[in-house]
Amino acid sequence: MSASLKGIRLAVIGGDDRELFLIPELEKLGAYIVGVGFEKAAPINGLNHASSLIEAVKQADVLLFPMYGTDERGVIKAKYANYPIVLDREVLQAISPHVPLIIGWARPALKSAAEMMGIRVIETAFLDEVAILNSIPSAEGAISMAMDSSVITIHGSQSFVLGLGRNGWTIARTLKGMGAQVTGVARKPADIARATEMGINALHFSDLEKEIGRADFIFNTVPQLILDKVLLEQVSKDAVIVDIASIPGGTDFEYAQLLGIKAMLAPGLPGIVAPKSAAKILAQVYPQLILRHLNTIMNTSIRLEVEVRRNEI
Amino acid sequence: MSASLKGIRLAVIGGDDRELFLIPELEKLGAYIVGVGFEKAAPINGLNHASSLIEAVKQADVLLFPMYGTDERGVIKAKYANYPIVLDREVLQAISPHVPLIIGWARPALKSAAEMMGIRVIETAFLDEVAILNSIPSAEGAISMAMDSSVITIHGSQSFVLGLGRNGWTIARTLKGMGAQVTGVARKPADIARATEMGINALHFSDLEKEIGRADFIFNTVPQLILDKVLLEQVSKDAVIVDIASIPGGTDFEYAQLLGIKAMLAPGLPGIVAPKSAAKILAQVYPQLILRHLNTIMNTSIRLEVEVRRNEI
Amino acid sequence: MSASLKGIRLAVIGGDDRELFLIPELEKLGAYIVGVGFEKAAPINGLNHASSLIEAVKQADVLLFPMYGTDERGVIKAKYANYPIVLDREVLQAISPHVPLIIGWARPALKSAAEMMGIRVIETAFLDEVAILNSIPSAEGAISMAMDSSVITIHGSQSFVLGLGRNGWTIARTLKGMGAQVTGVARKPADIARATEMGINALHFSDLEKEIGRADFIFNTVPQLILDKVLLEQVSKDAVIVDIASIPGGTDFEYAQLLGIKAMLAPGLPGIVAPKSAAKILAQVYPQLILRHLNTIMNTSIRLEVEVRRNEI
Amino acid sequence: MSASLKGIRLAVIGGDDRELFLIPELEKLGAYIVGVGFEKAAPINGLNHASSLIEAVKQADVLLFPMYGTDERGVIKAKYANYPIVLDREVLQAISPHVPLIIGWARPALKSAAEMMGIRVIETAFLDEVAILNSIPSAEGAISMAMDSSVITIHGSQSFVLGLGRNGWTIARTLKGMGAQVTGVARKPADIARATEMGINALHFSDLEKEIGRADFIFNTVPQLILDKVLLEQVSKDAVIVDIASIPGGTDFEYAQLLGIKAMLAPGLPGIVAPKSAAKILAQVYPQLILRHLNTIMNTSIRLEVEVRRNEI
Repeated sequence: MSASLKGIRLAVIGGDDRELFLIPELEKLGAYIVGVGFEKAAPINGLNHASSLIEAVKQADVLLFPMYGTDERGVIKAKYANYPIVLDREVLQAISPHVPLIIGWARPALKSAAEMMGIRVIETAFLDEVAILNSIPSAEGAISMAMDSSVITIHGSQSFVLGLGRNGWTIARTLKGMGAQVTGVARKPADIARATEMGINALHFSDLEKEIGRADFIFNTVPQLILDKVLLEQVSKDAVIVDIASIPGGTDFEYAQLLGIKAMLAPGLPGIVAPKSAAKILAQVYPQLILRHLNTIMNTSIRLEVEVRRNEI
Repeated sequence: MSASLKGIRLAVIGGDDRELFLIPELEKLGAYIVGVGFEKAAPINGLNHASSLIEAVKQADVLLFPMYGTDERGVIKAKYANYPIVLDREVLQAISPHVPLIIGWARPALKSAAEMMGIRVIETAFLDEVAILNSIPSAEGAISMAMDSSVITIHGSQSFVLGLGRNGWTIARTLKGMGAQVTGVARKPADIARATEMGINALHFSDLEKEIGRADFIFNTVPQLILDKVLLEQVSKDAVIVDIASIPGGTDFEYAQLLGIKAMLAPGLPGIVAPKSAAKILAQVYPQLILRHLNTIMNTSIRLEVEVRRNEI
Repeated sequence: MSASLKGIRLAVIGGDDRELFLIPELEKLGAYIVGVGFEKAAPINGLNHASSLIEAVKQADVLLFPMYGTDERGVIKAKYANYPIVLDREVLQAISPHVPLIIGWARPALKSAAEMMGIRVIETAFLDEVAILNSIPSAEGAISMAMDSSVITIHGSQSFVLGLGRNGWTIARTLKGMGAQVTGVARKPADIARATEMGINALHFSDLEKEIGRADFIFNTVPQLILDKVLLEQVSKDAVIVDIASIPGGTDFEYAQLLGIKAMLAPGLPGIVAPKSAAKILAQVYPQLILRHLNTIMNTSIRLEVEVRRNEI
Repeated sequence: MSASLKGIRLAVIGGDDRELFLIPELEKLGAYIVGVGFEKAAPINGLNHASSLIEAVKQADVLLFPMYGTDERGVIKAKYANYPIVLDREVLQAISPHVPLIIGWARPALKSAAEMMGIRVIETAFLDEVAILNSIPSAEGAISMAMDSSVITIHGSQSFVLGLGRNGWTIARTLKGMGAQVTGVARKPADIARATEMGINALHFSDLEKEIGRADFIFNTVPQLILDKVLLEQVSKDAVIVDIASIPGGTDFEYAQLLGIKAMLAPGLPGIVAPKSAAKILAQVYPQLILRHLNTIMNTSIRLEVEVRRNEI
């Protein structure tokens, strides 16, 4: 199924539990892997530790940065690093032309710097194949949180899903599979119609205020302030809100707390609740991204080098 | 739910069994309905027969043509008409400005004539809310045909759905709900990923040739020649093909027959298998279309007349 | 999975389309098959025609009679026979001791005659593994009939299933999988509770009269007069009744007709709608039945003969 | 739906979080409720505290003991009691004739003592309507525990359910609804066949040893040592075992630990994971039990007293 990565040198830079499962998968496909930021992890099959980010970058044909990229100061998310790993100008300058930088979300500053320096940045979090498959661990994590916080079962509950996008559909379908009475809230006629077809009670956002009162569970996926004061006033005190929209979520959490409504912000669930499944998704997508990239850099020295190494082994 | 049509005069022109159920629904919403082409039907609640198309057109604020529109000579599909009803230049000229012509599919000739004459044509077959909801009777009709033609059950069968669009998803989900092993065949990574999430075995069209051999049932939804000679050669002689793509379908039917494979073309199922459900869909969508149109023609004489009539009653 | 039938001689006597698929399956497992009553069928792989029932009986270690057994005069159901095949006293006397008579339903007369003559009759229609698996083609057949007779879709319909037994559960689950609003009608608290768990609206028979009025589809599985005049009076004129209980069904069909309600009796669907699937069920169950029987007749001459033949081949 | 309890005095004795939700429900149905063992709980609507068990017993027409009854020394499970409540001989002697003792599980000693003293004990844990509906919170709790302990998703996992009884079916159906590949392990042909019908991979216990190796999640429901050393040797080190059979479960937990396999015993989940849903189940069942009991004690003084009170209010 997955393509061979024979002869390709990958630098895996930081990340979370996902990378612990991802590295052996990529190694099995034939890649040579150098990593930085795994000092505190248990030994990982197929990983060659680099002494610094610069050193890792210099050795690689492809750079794999974590799903959550960097913080505003350029520090790379690296759960198992002993010291901060910083993606600064010096490092960027050390990246050879034609070496792609694969990353989940890239901050605007990184994107503009990379563009100026001719570095190809590939953001994976927006790829449908990553985002939709990642919606599965997200949905399970969100539902698990909802179960842990409630005194009732999902089965038979009134469960509202705000937003029928990549995450919303998966949450809605899973809840329905568990026996909940699911209401999907959307705006587009296509989504309203599809929800009806799937046996999900379809509701337009404009009718949410008058219906939300019967919700036992509310799952928000929309990265805008949806559950504002006005809506929260209608929500039952016994309801549980799980918000998986990216930070800061779509809920007025302070006001929810004031009203005594349980509300939790839970972005980034895949790497936490099911790192192995999340790693498997990346292990399916990365090789194809990498090979597609190599095909676009025909006749370059990198490609020739890779070819040589592929034939050697 | 549905908006009031009080004071609005609708001309319903031809159609099939759907219109028999649609007319009473629209009448219940308050519309005055004049119809043409229902001479052979049993009496229909709320219908006022017009003596000719011209006469009907002259009385109406909105014209409702059938889903299947006209044939290449302008003859309107009208299952219950005693004589051919023709949409010709004379009729078009009789249509007042601001009177919209609502129709399923409009032929290019009709569209260009209407544009020249300033007539607003609203095609409904392409509206998501119509097409997705119509996919339900289509899917049931296609599956029912497949069952009638086969010596095995849907449950436990290998069922392939070619194309995961508005119809494909519905067929796939219904088959899965009945216990089939469903393979969804698509091209877009988003569709492949979503199929996986839904528990549908996802297949890229490029791998179809080597997998199709295990299919018991094949449902085609793609309006292009997909099941060509090369693919049909791989299909089991016991398989059943149901093709619901619009005429001429996506199957080389002659070659299938030559190979002894059962293959059926079945476009336009909603009006045949479940006219009442299909009418209900239209009865949900039309009022909103009509009212939205009336809002766009503010301050016109038609709108004023309608307002007067709405207040009178 | 299936056990070997090597060295075992089976007589297949009459039947319907199922047997056309069953015989090659049994032959593949190694059985030698002699058949009677297939003169009008196309050639069947692995079948050796016997000239008469007596001749077939004399050659066999095991007798396979059809699912529907015999009529009241002893005539064996045999769709592809050129002449009536009668199971009379002479034939019964020709059956050697230890040769089991496997049959779907045996009439009381046959059972008592067999008992007197020391013939082991194995009725398969009451075996859970046969009855539950047969419920799948039955359910699909019943639903297909309902679809053909209705102007609405199963999806979104109010569908009632009377009796939650081996057939009822399957019909209910399939309808739910297709998107119907399913009401399961039962008496036992266990069934009511299980229906609730499965997302099926549970109803006690004592409440049926006041609820039946909202049914679009009614599937009866109870072999007693359930849909009597009193209940039928409450049923909508647009409803469709499919009764799969054994003849005469559980519906007052005459009264239904009088009221203008569509009602169909449809027993014995598996052999009609999906003979190949139904044959596969029997091909799974018969070998185990046969081998279990052979193990119970240890040290008899038949068993020894079979063993010799098994080793020879 | 639920019957009126007007005029009936109930003693609720101990219990867990369920009783906090159960008491207000029963009070809403009209019962007068006296409770013992709720000193540490927040105020409960409709509860009148008794100063001792004896006092509570003396005031009541019906006694409601907790689901988990008493320990071996007669101490009643009472999460919110300030001091141990003991069901001793003195208390039993204080129970009037015709006052039923409703309890989840009664120990043999209690049952024999009650029988000798003519006290009617009604065990509810074995009632299908309680056990099957309780299987819903049990299943959700077990699945939630499995999710919390695993690095993979339920979706796409190989999940084994050992035992297809009241709990097993619910776990299997829920897992399937979440997208797992479910294998149901059973012994009875009826269960094997039904699993097949439901789209669950059916496996006989005799084949478990050779199949268990591929399981990611194993849910045991059988109260016998099923997962013994021999089977555990075959289980993947990455698998997660959740055992919901009553104590001591069906797993050799020590050996599992030795092998490094995560295994958890989790009996009694309903009252822990979803006390409100579990209370709702009891609130549906108890009124019917109570009224049925009252009907059996026609013409007794208790019944007459209740009738008088019912009319008074």
